[in-house]
Amino acid sequence: MIEEGERLVLVLGTREYYVRAGEGTLSTDLGMLDLASLIGMDYGGIIATHLGKEFVVRRPRATDFFAHASRTGAPMLPKDIGMVIAYTGMNRNDDVLDAGTGSGIAAIYFGGIARQVVTCEVRPEFAKKAEKNIRDAGLENVEVRACDVLEADGEYDVVHLDLGVREEHIAHAYRLVRPGGYLACYTPFIEQMSAAYDAAANLFSEVHTYECMEREMTRGSRGTRPSTRVGHSGYITIARR
Amino acid sequence: MIEEGERLVLVLGTREYYVRAGEGTLSTDLGMLDLASLIGMDYGGIIATHLGKEFVVRRPRATDFFAHASRTGAPMLPKDIGMVIAYTGMNRNDDVLDAGTGSGIAAIYFGGIARQVVTCEVRPEFAKKAEKNIRDAGLENVEVRACDVLEADGEYDVVHLDLGVREEHIAHAYRLVRPGGYLACYTPFIEQMSAAYDAAANLFSEVHTYECMEREMTRGSRGTRPSTRVGHSGYITIARR
Amino acid sequence: MIEEGERLVLVLGTREYYVRAGEGTLSTDLGMLDLASLIGMDYGGIIATHLGKEFVVRRPRATDFFAHASRTGAPMLPKDIGMVIAYTGMNRNDDVLDAGTGSGIAAIYFGGIARQVVTCEVRPEFAKKAEKNIRDAGLENVEVRACDVLEADGEYDVVHLDLGVREEHIAHAYRLVRPGGYLACYTPFIEQMSAAYDAAANLFSEVHTYECMEREMTRGSRGTRPSTRVGHSGYITIARR
Amino acid sequence: MIEEGERLVLVLGTREYYVRAGEGTLSTDLGMLDLASLIGMDYGGIIATHLGKEFVVRRPRATDFFAHASRTGAPMLPKDIGMVIAYTGMNRNDDVLDAGTGSGIAAIYFGGIARQVVTCEVRPEFAKKAEKNIRDAGLENVEVRACDVLEADGEYDVVHLDLGVREEHIAHAYRLVRPGGYLACYTPFIEQMSAAYDAAANLFSEVHTYECMEREMTRGSRGTRPSTRVGHSGYITIARR
Repeated sequence: MIEEGERLVLVLGTREYYVRAGEGTLSTDLGMLDLASLIGMDYGGIIATHLGKEFVVRRPRATDFFAHASRTGAPMLPKDIGMVIAYTGMNRNDDVLDAGTGSGIAAIYFGGIARQVVTCEVRPEFAKKAEKNIRDAGLENVEVRACDVLEADGEYDVVHLDLGVREEHIAHAYRLVRPGGYLACYTPFIEQMSAAYDAAANLFSEVHTYECMEREMTRGSRGTRPSTRVGHSGYITIARR
Repeated sequence: MIEEGERLVLVLGTREYYVRAGEGTLSTDLGMLDLASLIGMDYGGIIATHLGKEFVVRRPRATDFFAHASRTGAPMLPKDIGMVIAYTGMNRNDDVLDAGTGSGIAAIYFGGIARQVVTCEVRPEFAKKAEKNIRDAGLENVEVRACDVLEADGEYDVVHLDLGVREEHIAHAYRLVRPGGYLACYTPFIEQMSAAYDAAANLFSEVHTYECMEREMTRGSRGTRPSTRVGHSGYITIARR
Repeated sequence: MIEEGERLVLVLGTREYYVRAGEGTLSTDLGMLDLASLIGMDYGGIIATHLGKEFVVRRPRATDFFAHASRTGAPMLPKDIGMVIAYTGMNRNDDVLDAGTGSGIAAIYFGGIARQVVTCEVRPEFAKKAEKNIRDAGLENVEVRACDVLEADGEYDVVHLDLGVREEHIAHAYRLVRPGGYLACYTPFIEQMSAAYDAAANLFSEVHTYECMEREMTRGSRGTRPSTRVGHSGYITIARR
Repeated sequence: MIEEGERLVLVLGTREYYVRAGEGTLSTDLGMLDLASLIGMDYGGIIATHLGKEFVVRRPRATDFFAHASRTGAPMLPKDIGMVIAYTGMNRNDDVLDAGTGSGIAAIYFGGIARQVVTCEVRPEFAKKAEKNIRDAGLENVEVRACDVLEADGEYDVVHLDLGVREEHIAHAYRLVRPGGYLACYTPFIEQMSAAYDAAANLFSEVHTYECMEREMTRGSRGTRPSTRVGHSGYITIARR
């Protein structure tokens, strides 16, 4: 049952609105929606505009937060977050350390899977915005810390680094990862990737660096073809303790 | 605390043994290991051979089951499983329907994340082997059904199809997916991908087909370069209800 | 020695002008250039504006015609033209049949290499524009025919098809290719590629289809990375008689 | 008309023999071939074994030399040679400097296109073998020099470097390239590529580095799919003087 203040996505065809239950009235080109009436509804229910146009009420998923959450920069792409999840085997028993939080999208993904996520963001204003996104996602197992990851302590099954990585980050991650656990390090540039690889190879075992070149396939009236855009985003270095 | 019959990975350097606690004695080139002594140990503990060589006791993760579980064919690759997880935003609140199970690797990944997984495998001998792998993974929320996915009913947040997909599979999946939920369909061949895309586009919204071309980067004494192998595996069609 | 009417490229830093020797005056932001004074100069010479700014006089190469020639559509990309040249081993002893001409860029490339090129373009206005581009390139061994390639006869070492290819085109190409010679067929879409492959495999030997995914590497102050754009353009099917 | 000592390829179905006209007898599983009888024949003619099996006599093309010439290491791949030809616009008016020759395959390609090719190979035994391959290709416009490319002089339209490139190679190439001409530099490793890019960017204009990820498409009874192998070979840096 939907509670006051909860984030929702209202959908009609290709129209999508990212709203908060209870917050006044939303004007759309198909009429006005009373957002207070969302409170107490079930997910998947219908809310109609004053013109009778019906929107489906969607409980947002990580994909919706990727699309709609407020951003402090370019977040990691789902394809890369998926690589981290898959190559670490992230699961419900895991304690995860995530740094730098950025907009908090990776933390939202991880928080939906792992037992507990601690996410460190050194820039206080980024941490604040990420905190807000993560609260919107209703994740009570994700803790945002406005600090340098080098200050983090504890034990983790997965440590994920998406920051201007230096050797000391890798060394610190090594101390925090449980035996059998993983480091995953995202680096857009080759020089960073090489440095991260070398630092990881000195400490961890099973060190591999991957790039996921994602390509969308397009179907049109003239036929099927790969999209003319393939996105490079970054390299993912996976290392196991 | 490790219980009798539990699957474990014993690790020393690059040596890895996939064993069962309590099952007699394991001969290695570094001496004999008494597997009964694993019972009652903690994960991360040490077990020594009769020659005093010490192996770390690792609780297996999905990545270990991918590496060691017995196979009935080529399983879906982690990169592709990661795409499915990321593009559906799979999380702990989800009910997931997975078909065809194959060796059960995708089901093991999904079972570590979702609330509940039903996995359908039409070939009884494959279902049996997958059942064994999934039991080894200690997942009590994964149910293996030796049946055609067309016989499945219920409601799911994510339906994942990795089989010789036909239009009726897509139509049936549409009936099983909750509003806001996802279909993810894996197809190695272009013709299947095109047919799946078209069938999905007739029913679902937000239909996209992706290919993840994974490339490993290699670091050697002569320098850094992409591996000369890039694995095509298949296309992943994502559709939202 | 440069003759009247000849095409040239005038270069100063990143400024490039594609001009014709003898044709009046060119206004640039660095002053006026008297194009008549180019006549009789040597390639690589200097022409100065009335403000004393010096441009180098460059004899255009195929790369310059790709950049500057007037277009009737998107021409084949150099990477794909290079694949055709390399996989057919095109050389100075070759008679080449090229169809459809389009803007004539491939014909200009081939004309700079082969003994003789016949290029067929079924749309008369395209043929006319290509004719003009090819004359600008100073290639006397390239003949533009405003006709359907199915009307072409003769014997060729290489037949290159860049058109909405049908089975009859492949069959006709087979009749025109000398033993040991090659068919190269460019198709943007997968369905065309498949049809071309099958038609070729019925007649020719050594049939292969390639895609060249070209990626530019970028070097910046933050480091080196692949460009975020990889251009799919089309598939190239190579077949040998 | 075929002359004594000339290299030829004899073809029957998927059987290929790389022979020399006049050199005794060739044993095949389809019978004996009298190679003296090739002398005076025309290309495309038929030579029969003593069992009456007929082979077509093929004049070798660059693609055949790539397949059959004796190698001193892994030669540059056709896709990469094609990139060099296309991005430099190599043509019959060109003087080309090629270094390190290796097996001479790139020199054979370039020799079939350009007016004149000088190819430098610092290892005398490689130069000797390349010389033999190039003579077999019947190219009188290709000169093999057993020397360091730093000793080369003259003026060239295209300088192609496929060697352990150092900054001084790029600087020397700059002195040898005519205005409007090109440097093309092939480097398998990222560190070499970066160094070559930077050295070229200091001297030349229009500096770009490309990678061609070639992928073969396969058609089988189950459908069409990309090959599971994509070959990385190297990066090609193109720079213009």
